[in-house]
Amino acid sequence: MDERDIRAILEVVQAKKLSPAAALERLKHLPFEDLGFAKVDHHRALRQGYAEAVFGRGKTPAQVAEIVRAMLHPKAARHNVLVTRADAKTHAAVRRVARAAKFHPLSGVITIERTRTVTGKGTILVVSAGTSDIPVAEEAELTARLMGNRVEHLYDVGVAGLHRLLDRREMLTRARVIICVAGMEGALPSVVGGLVGVPVIAVPTSTGYGASFAGVAALLGMLNSCASNVSVVNIDNGFGAACVASVINRL
Amino acid sequence: MDERDIRAILEVVQAKKLSPAAALERLKHLPFEDLGFAKVDHHRALRQGYAEAVFGRGKTPAQVAEIVRAMLHPKAARHNVLVTRADAKTHAAVRRVARAAKFHPLSGVITIERTRTVTGKGTILVVSAGTSDIPVAEEAELTARLMGNRVEHLYDVGVAGLHRLLDRREMLTRARVIICVAGMEGALPSVVGGLVGVPVIAVPTSTGYGASFAGVAALLGMLNSCASNVSVVNIDNGFGAACVASVINRL
Amino acid sequence: MDERDIRAILEVVQAKKLSPAAALERLKHLPFEDLGFAKVDHHRALRQGYAEAVFGRGKTPAQVAEIVRAMLHPKAARHNVLVTRADAKTHAAVRRVARAAKFHPLSGVITIERTRTVTGKGTILVVSAGTSDIPVAEEAELTARLMGNRVEHLYDVGVAGLHRLLDRREMLTRARVIICVAGMEGALPSVVGGLVGVPVIAVPTSTGYGASFAGVAALLGMLNSCASNVSVVNIDNGFGAACVASVINRL
Amino acid sequence: MDERDIRAILEVVQAKKLSPAAALERLKHLPFEDLGFAKVDHHRALRQGYAEAVFGRGKTPAQVAEIVRAMLHPKAARHNVLVTRADAKTHAAVRRVARAAKFHPLSGVITIERTRTVTGKGTILVVSAGTSDIPVAEEAELTARLMGNRVEHLYDVGVAGLHRLLDRREMLTRARVIICVAGMEGALPSVVGGLVGVPVIAVPTSTGYGASFAGVAALLGMLNSCASNVSVVNIDNGFGAACVASVINRL
Amino acid sequence: MDERDIRAILEVVQAKKLSPAAALERLKHLPFEDLGFAKVDHHRALRQGYAEAVFGRGKTPAQVAEIVRAMLHPKAARHNVLVTRADAKTHAAVRRVARAAKFHPLSGVITIERTRTVTGKGTILVVSAGTSDIPVAEEAELTARLMGNRVEHLYDVGVAGLHRLLDRREMLTRARVIICVAGMEGALPSVVGGLVGVPVIAVPTSTGYGASFAGVAALLGMLNSCASNVSVVNIDNGFGAACVASVINRL
Amino acid sequence: MDERDIRAILEVVQAKKLSPAAALERLKHLPFEDLGFAKVDHHRALRQGYAEAVFGRGKTPAQVAEIVRAMLHPKAARHNVLVTRADAKTHAAVRRVARAAKFHPLSGVITIERTRTVTGKGTILVVSAGTSDIPVAEEAELTARLMGNRVEHLYDVGVAGLHRLLDRREMLTRARVIICVAGMEGALPSVVGGLVGVPVIAVPTSTGYGASFAGVAALLGMLNSCASNVSVVNIDNGFGAACVASVINRL
Amino acid sequence: MDERDIRAILEVVQAKKLSPAAALERLKHLPFEDLGFAKVDHHRALRQGYAEAVFGRGKTPAQVAEIVRAMLHPKAARHNVLVTRADAKTHAAVRRVARAAKFHPLSGVITIERTRTVTGKGTILVVSAGTSDIPVAEEAELTARLMGNRVEHLYDVGVAGLHRLLDRREMLTRARVIICVAGMEGALPSVVGGLVGVPVIAVPTSTGYGASFAGVAALLGMLNSCASNVSVVNIDNGFGAACVASVINRL
Amino acid sequence: MDERDIRAILEVVQAKKLSPAAALERLKHLPFEDLGFAKVDHHRALRQGYAEAVFGRGKTPAQVAEIVRAMLHPKAARHNVLVTRADAKTHAAVRRVARAAKFHPLSGVITIERTRTVTGKGTILVVSAGTSDIPVAEEAELTARLMGNRVEHLYDVGVAGLHRLLDRREMLTRARVIICVAGMEGALPSVVGGLVGVPVIAVPTSTGYGASFAGVAALLGMLNSCASNVSVVNIDNGFGAACVASVINRL
Repeated sequence: MDERDIRAILEVVQAKKLSPAAALERLKHLPFEDLGFAKVDHHRALRQGYAEAVFGRGKTPAQVAEIVRAMLHPKAARHNVLVTRADAKTHAAVRRVARAAKFHPLSGVITIERTRTVTGKGTILVVSAGTSDIPVAEEAELTARLMGNRVEHLYDVGVAGLHRLLDRREMLTRARVIICVAGMEGALPSVVGGLVGVPVIAVPTSTGYGASFAGVAALLGMLNSCASNVSVVNIDNGFGAACVASVINRL
Repeated sequence: MDERDIRAILEVVQAKKLSPAAALERLKHLPFEDLGFAKVDHHRALRQGYAEAVFGRGKTPAQVAEIVRAMLHPKAARHNVLVTRADAKTHAAVRRVARAAKFHPLSGVITIERTRTVTGKGTILVVSAGTSDIPVAEEAELTARLMGNRVEHLYDVGVAGLHRLLDRREMLTRARVIICVAGMEGALPSVVGGLVGVPVIAVPTSTGYGASFAGVAALLGMLNSCASNVSVVNIDNGFGAACVASVINRL
Repeated sequence: MDERDIRAILEVVQAKKLSPAAALERLKHLPFEDLGFAKVDHHRALRQGYAEAVFGRGKTPAQVAEIVRAMLHPKAARHNVLVTRADAKTHAAVRRVARAAKFHPLSGVITIERTRTVTGKGTILVVSAGTSDIPVAEEAELTARLMGNRVEHLYDVGVAGLHRLLDRREMLTRARVIICVAGMEGALPSVVGGLVGVPVIAVPTSTGYGASFAGVAALLGMLNSCASNVSVVNIDNGFGAACVASVINRL
Repeated sequence: MDERDIRAILEVVQAKKLSPAAALERLKHLPFEDLGFAKVDHHRALRQGYAEAVFGRGKTPAQVAEIVRAMLHPKAARHNVLVTRADAKTHAAVRRVARAAKFHPLSGVITIERTRTVTGKGTILVVSAGTSDIPVAEEAELTARLMGNRVEHLYDVGVAGLHRLLDRREMLTRARVIICVAGMEGALPSVVGGLVGVPVIAVPTSTGYGASFAGVAALLGMLNSCASNVSVVNIDNGFGAACVASVINRL
Repeated sequence: MDERDIRAILEVVQAKKLSPAAALERLKHLPFEDLGFAKVDHHRALRQGYAEAVFGRGKTPAQVAEIVRAMLHPKAARHNVLVTRADAKTHAAVRRVARAAKFHPLSGVITIERTRTVTGKGTILVVSAGTSDIPVAEEAELTARLMGNRVEHLYDVGVAGLHRLLDRREMLTRARVIICVAGMEGALPSVVGGLVGVPVIAVPTSTGYGASFAGVAALLGMLNSCASNVSVVNIDNGFGAACVASVINRL
Repeated sequence: MDERDIRAILEVVQAKKLSPAAALERLKHLPFEDLGFAKVDHHRALRQGYAEAVFGRGKTPAQVAEIVRAMLHPKAARHNVLVTRADAKTHAAVRRVARAAKFHPLSGVITIERTRTVTGKGTILVVSAGTSDIPVAEEAELTARLMGNRVEHLYDVGVAGLHRLLDRREMLTRARVIICVAGMEGALPSVVGGLVGVPVIAVPTSTGYGASFAGVAALLGMLNSCASNVSVVNIDNGFGAACVASVINRL
Repeated sequence: MDERDIRAILEVVQAKKLSPAAALERLKHLPFEDLGFAKVDHHRALRQGYAEAVFGRGKTPAQVAEIVRAMLHPKAARHNVLVTRADAKTHAAVRRVARAAKFHPLSGVITIERTRTVTGKGTILVVSAGTSDIPVAEEAELTARLMGNRVEHLYDVGVAGLHRLLDRREMLTRARVIICVAGMEGALPSVVGGLVGVPVIAVPTSTGYGASFAGVAALLGMLNSCASNVSVVNIDNGFGAACVASVINRL
Repeated sequence: MDERDIRAILEVVQAKKLSPAAALERLKHLPFEDLGFAKVDHHRALRQGYAEAVFGRGKTPAQVAEIVRAMLHPKAARHNVLVTRADAKTHAAVRRVARAAKFHPLSGVITIERTRTVTGKGTILVVSAGTSDIPVAEEAELTARLMGNRVEHLYDVGVAGLHRLLDRREMLTRARVIICVAGMEGALPSVVGGLVGVPVIAVPTSTGYGASFAGVAALLGMLNSCASNVSVVNIDNGFGAACVASVINRL
C-alpha cells in the first residue's frame, strides 16, 4: 500500500467518483483470504516474488490440504506451492486437491510445480557436511528450485576431510550464492566462506548428540564464524536459507 | 589458487622454463605476510574485494598500528583500511602510521579512506531500533561505506512505534540490501522483512538488561523471525553484517 | 480471614457465647475440602471470584473426575468449572459426573458452564500470531469466557504481515484488556502494545523449532518488549493470561 | 490514526477543501520530533496518557538533557518527565534544562514533576521482599506516582518471615493493583497473589548471588507462580511494572 | 577400614599368627560382591545404617531382580530393600526372588520390608505443594519409612493458599526433620523453613511446563531460599532427600 | 504464634480482662522492629536459636551499622552478631556501634561475639578442596562457631590427591556434621560422603574459570552426587551451610 | 598429499611423461568413493590407521549396509569395520553383506572383525562408575579392540565407594592409557587421574536425571577436573574416546 | 602407596624390627608438606614426573611466593617450577625467593627453569587460530617446555584462510602431539585433526564476543569435532593441555 495507491484513490475521491466510505473500504482492502485458522497471504507472494509455502508441522492433513487449495485458487498467478515438514498422510490429503503434488520423503517436503520459469540470475549451491544433514539440505534445494533458481549440490564434504571439499573447488567458485548445511561443530561455512567471494547462508542442523545440544553447538559455531561473508538462519531451517538465497539471487 | 593457475605453472614446467623445485615453491607461495603475532592476508582482500580490517579489541595500540602499517604497504592496491572496536589511544597510534586515519568515537571505528570508488550496485540501508543501538549501526554503516557502497540510515524506528517506520517506507523500498540493528526483543527485522522484497541482514545488539541476556533475547528473536528474507550475524557484529551486505551488493 | 472476622469471633467469646476452645476451632476452620490427593479450595473461588479450574495434565481421568465432582458439590455457588490440558478420555470420565461437560479438542479444554453472568466490565480481546498458536489462544479465550467476560479474537496476524493487523485496528481499540499469544520471535505484543493504551498480557507459545527452544525465544522477546504496557505469563499459559485479564477486567 | 480521522480527511478532500497531495501529507504527518539520535514521540504520551520517560543508561548526560529539553518543549501538555537509570552527573546536566529536576540516588531516578493530577482510580501498592530490592521498588513507586497514581509501599516482607506480611494484610486488601518486587527465589508474588483478588505485577530483581544468576531464579519463580493473578515484567524493570500497573489503574 | 582394624591386623602379624601375604589380602578384602554388571556393596549398608536400594531406571527387570537377590542373600542382616523408579514388569521379576515385594504405582517404588525396627529418633514430615508432586513425595516417604523412621505427610499445601499450611502448623512443629517437595516456583521450603527451627530438605520436582524447565525453576528457587535452614537435593530425588533426612534423624 | 498463645489470649478475653480490640492488637503484635530499609526480626532469632546475621553486600557501611545497632539493643538476649560479605570500611562503621567487632579479611566476615555458650551437641567439620575455596570455608566456620558449635577444619584435600584426605580419616569420623566446600568439579562431597555416615552439607564455590561457569559445574556435580547423605546449598553460601549444619547439630 | 608427491608428479611432467592436464587430474585424484549419500573415505583409514566406522543413528538399515559393503570392498586392506548406535534391524541388514557381523546389544555396536593384529603398544583400560554407564563403556571397549589394542575393563567403581577402586589399583597402574566413563557428577576421572601417571580420556554419560541435564553435569565436572592428565570427549562418545586412546597407544 | 610398599613394611613388622604402632605411622606418612593454606604435594610431582605448578589467580603475591619457596626446598629434586595466571607484582614477590624466575607478560606465566633435561620423546606442536589466542597458546608452550618437551608453534592459522595452514603441513606431520588453541567457532582442531594421525588436544579460548559466550561456542565446537583424534580441555586451559600432551609424549 504505497503512496501512489493512496494518491490515486484520493484523486478519484476528489473527482467524486468514489464516496469517502467506499474509499475507506478500498484503503482497508488487502488481498488476503480468511480460512478461519490461517490467513493465506497472496499479497505477500506477489510482493516478494515467492513461491507460496505452508509449514506442515503442527497442522492436520486436512488443514494443510485446505490451505493448499486456497493457494491454488487464483490460477492466473501460477506460482509453485511447497509444503515443508510434512509426512505421507499429509501428502495423501494434499494430492486430493492437487494432482501434481510430489512427496520427497527424506526431507518431508511436498512440491507442486506449476512453472519452471527461472528468475534467479545465477546458480545456488547447497553444500552439506554429513549424511545426516541431507534432509535439511534437500529442503533447501527443493525450496530454492521451486522459487525459480538453478540449484546444484555438493554433499558429505566435512572439514575433517578437507581434500573432499578442495577437490570440488570449481563447483564452489561457480555459484552465485552458497547455502552451507552442517551439524556437529558447524565449521563448514567458515571454511567454505574463506574459499569464495559470494554470500554464504549457513544452516545449523540438529544432528549430533550430547554436547551438540540439538544444533546449538553448530549454531554458535556459525554465528562466530571467522569468515566475514557468512550469515545464519535458524537450526534445521533449510527453507529459510533457500528463501534468503533466492531473494539474493534475484538481485 | 585455482585450476588455471596450477595449469599455467605446470605448462611452464613442461616447457622446462621452470624447475620442479621452483614450481613447488611457487605453488606454495601465497601473498601473506608474517608479522609474528598476526599474518596479514593481502590475498584475501584481493579474493573477496574487501577493504582490509583489523579487530581492535584485545590488541595493544602498538600491535594495531603495526598491522595497519603492513596493510598500507602495497600501495598499488589502494584499498581502504578499517579498525573496529578501537579507542582514542589506538587511534593516536594508528595516526602515526596513517595520517588520514579518522576516529568515530560512537562506534569506536577508525577509518583510513584511500579510495571512494563505488563498487556496490545499489544502496545499503542501515535501520536501527533505539538510541543505544546506534554504535553498532554506525560500525555497519562505516564498514559498508569503506567497502565501496552507497549507504543510507534510518535510526530509532522501534516496533512499538510503528508509524515512525511506516512513515519512511519509501526509504525501505529504495534499498537493495537492508541491515537491521536491534536489541531488546529483536523484532524489527521481522517487521522490516515483511515490508520489503530484498535481503535483510539482522544484527542483534547487547543493549538492554535483565532477561535481554546481553543480546541473546534479540538474537533468538531474529533467528526465529517469521519473515523469510532475514538472516542473522553475531551479537553486536555490525562489521560482519556490512561485509555480508557488501558481498551481496556487488552481485 | 480478615480483621473483622477475628473481631467478630472475639466479641462472641467476650459475650461468653463461645468458649475459647470453640473459638480457636473456628479461627482455624477454613472452607476447603480434602480429597486425599488434592485439596479443593472453594474459599479461593469465593475470594477471587474465579471459576474453578483443574490442571489436567499429570492427573488420571478418575482423579480429574473426582476433583470436578467435589467442585460441583456446593450447588449454591453455581460457578463455572474448567479443566485444562485434558484429552478425550478425561472428558469421558468428567461427563459421567457432569453431563454438561463440553470438550474443545484444539486446546484440550473441558468446560462446564453453569452460569452466563457477565461480571467483566469490558471486552477481552485474544490476538494470536500464527495457526499453531491457536490452541493456546483458545485456552485463553474459553477461560476468560467462563470467568464471566465478553471475549473476542483476532487470529493469524503475525508481524511480518503488518497490514493484516493494521486492517483490524478498530478491534484492538475496542478492547479493555488484550491477551497476545505468539511463538517464534514473540514480537506481536510489542507491536500491539504500541498501538493501544490498555494492558496487554503476553503469552509465549512453545511452537517453532530449533532456536525457538520450546518458547524461550518468544518468552525473552516478550520480557524485553519495548512497549511499556506489556506483562508476561509462562510459556503456553493461556489459562493464566485469562485469569490475569479477568482480574483486571473486573476492576 | 483511527478510521474516523481518515474519514474526516477524506470528506474534506471530497469537499475540495483539501488537495490530494495535502491530504496525503496530513495522513503521513505524525507528532514526533527528530533529534538525530532519538525520536521523541509526543504522540505516544498522548495516546497512552503516560508521563514521558527516558532510559538513562548508555546515554551521555548531554544526550539525556537534550531529550528532556525536547520533551519539555510543548508546554501545553504539562505531563511529568522521568529519567531512569541515571546518576548524579546526568542529574546535573538535566537540571540545567529543567530546574525542578529532583534526583533519587537509591534508584537512580530523576523526576520532573509538572502536575500532581491523579488519574489513577485506586491505590497502587509496591511490596518488596528485602533491603536490596528497594532500588527497584523505588523506581516503580516514583514512576507510578508521576504517572498520576496514589502509591503506597510495604518493604522488607520476605516469605521466610510470613508474620511480617500477614501483619499488614489490610494494606494488601486496600490496593487496586499490586507491584511485587523480589529477588532470590521470587516467591513473594505467589504468596501475595494468594492473599488478594487484584492483579499482581511481579518484578524479579538481580539481587542475590551464585545460583540466583542475576535474577533468573526469581524470574523463573514468578513465571511459574501458582497464583493465577500474577504477570511478570523483565528483571529489575520497576519502571515497566509501574507502567503496566498505571494502565490498569486508569481502566 | 579404620586405624584400629589395621593395628589389629598388624599385631597379629607381629605375633606371627598371620603371614604378611595373608595380612595383605585381608587389608584388601572388603565386603562387596561382584555381579558383573553391578557391585553390591553390603559394606556401605553396614557403614551407613541404610536400607539397601536399587535405582531401577535404565536396568532390565532381570538385572534388578538379580541385584535384589544378592542383597537378600546375607540373611543375618535383615535390612529392608527398596527399588526406585521401577514399573509393574520389574515388580513381577522382583517378586519371583522376593515374595514380600510390594509395588507402589504412584511413585514406582518396590518395597521389601524385612524389619520394622525404628532407629530414627523423631518424626520425619514430608510436605508437598501440589497433586503432581505426590509421586516424588511418596518416594521420599517410603524410603524414610524403610530406613527405620516414623513418617508423616502433609500434601497439597501450596504457597498461594497459605491458610492450608498455617492450619496445620502443629504438624510442622512436631517434626524433627522436614522434607519439602515442590515444583513450579519452589517457594514452599522458604515458607516452611521460616515457620520451624528444624532442618528442611528441599526436593524440586519436574512438574510444571514452559519456563519451569523440568524442575530447574524450582531448583533455583530452593537454592536461593531466604530461609537459612534449607538445603537441597536433585530434581525429583525423593529417595536422596529421605536418605539425608534419615541420617539426620539418627543423630 | 502458636496455639497456646492464641488460647491464652482468648481466655483473658473471656475473663473480660482484655477487650476484643486490645486482643486483636496483641494477636497482631510480633517482635520485629522497623528501621525503614530493613525490618530486624528478633523473633526469628528466638524461634530458630540463631545468632543474628546481616548480609553485607549491597548495603552501605552506615546501613549495616544501623542494623547491627538495632540487633544489639535488646541486651538481655546476648546472642552473637555476624556480618557477612563485608569489607574494611563496613567494619570501621560497625566498630563505632560495637567495640568488640572483629574483621576476618579472608572471608569478609565481621563477628561480634557476646557469648561462648556451646549449644551444638557434636563437632562440625569444615572440609575444603583447594586454597581458593578457603574464603567460603572460613565464612562457614565462623558462622558455625558463633552459632554455638565446636568447629574443626581440614583444608586443601582435593580428590586428585586422595591420600591427603584418607590420611585424615579419623577427623572425618569424629564429626557429627560435615560441611564440604569445593569448586571446579565439586567431587569432594561425594568422596567424603562415601567415607562417613553423618550428614554432609555441600557448598559449591565460584572458583575456577571457563567451563566452571562461576560455580555451576561444582553445583551440578554436588546435586548429582552418588553419595546419598549429601545435600546442597547455593554457590559460595558458607553462611547458609553453617546455618543448616547448626540446626542439625542442635537436634 | 604431501610435498614429495607433488614433487614426484612435477618431475614426471618435466620428463614429458605426463601431460599437464593429466598431472592436474592426478593432483586432484584422492582415494575416496562416492555412494551418493556418503563418501567412504578409504584414504582416511590409511592415513590414520583406523578401523573404519559408521555412525548408525539417523541412517536406515539399507544405508548402513550399503556403506559397510563399500568399506569391505578393497579386500586387500583387511581392516576391521564397526557400526555404532545400531539396532537389531540394522544388524540384520549388515549381516546380509557381511556374514561375520556380530551385534552387541548393550552398546548397540556391530563389529566385523577381519584381523586380530595388535598394533597398540600397551593396554587400554576402560573404567566406569555405575551400571548405567556400561553401554558407553562397552562402545569404547569394542572400538579400542577393533582398532588393534589390548583392552581391559573395570566396571562399577564410583567415587562414593572408594575402596572398590583402591582395591584394584594394580589394574590402574598396569594401563598405558585409561578411558574413564562416568555420569552423574563425573568425578571418577579426577580420582583416577590423581592415582596414575598416564593419559586419562574422560567420557561423560547422559545417565542420571534432573540436574544431570543429560550428561552436562558430568561433562562440566570433567572439564574442570583438578587432575591435570585428563582430557574430555563428547557426552556418550565411547567411540571417540577409544579413537583418541588408540592414537595415543600407537605412539 | 602400592602393594609392594605395604608388603615390605609388613615383613619388617613380622621380623619384629618395627612395632605395629610405628608401622601404622609409616603407612600414614606421605610426602606432602602443610603450609596452612595449601598442601604442597611433592609426592605428586614424583608420581607424575611433572614440573610443579601454582595456579596464581586468587592468591596474593605473598601466598604464591610462599608456595614457590616450599616447592624449591627439596633441592635434590631439581624439577622446574611454573606459576600460571600471574602478574608483575606476583613476579616481583616470587623473584625474592627465586632469583631465576622469569615473567612472560603475554600469558602471565612465571617460569623457574632448573633443568633442561628433555624427557618427552617427540615434538609437541602448539597451533593457534588468531592473534587473541596467543596468550593461551604461550601458556601451553611454556608449560610443555618446562615439563621437558621439545616444543614448536604455528600461530594465526584460522580455518577461513586454509592456505596458511596447508602451507605448513610439514610442520603438522612432524609433531608427535598437537595442541590446538582456538576461540570463536573452534573449528581448527577438526581441520588439523583431519590432516594428521597423532593425538590433538583442543583448547577453546574465551576470545570473541556476543554469541561466543566467553569460549562456550568454541568448547562446544571442539566437543562435537568430526575428527576422531581430538580430545578437549577447559576453556583457556593452556596449562592443562600441555600437561596432557606431556604425559602422552613421555609414553
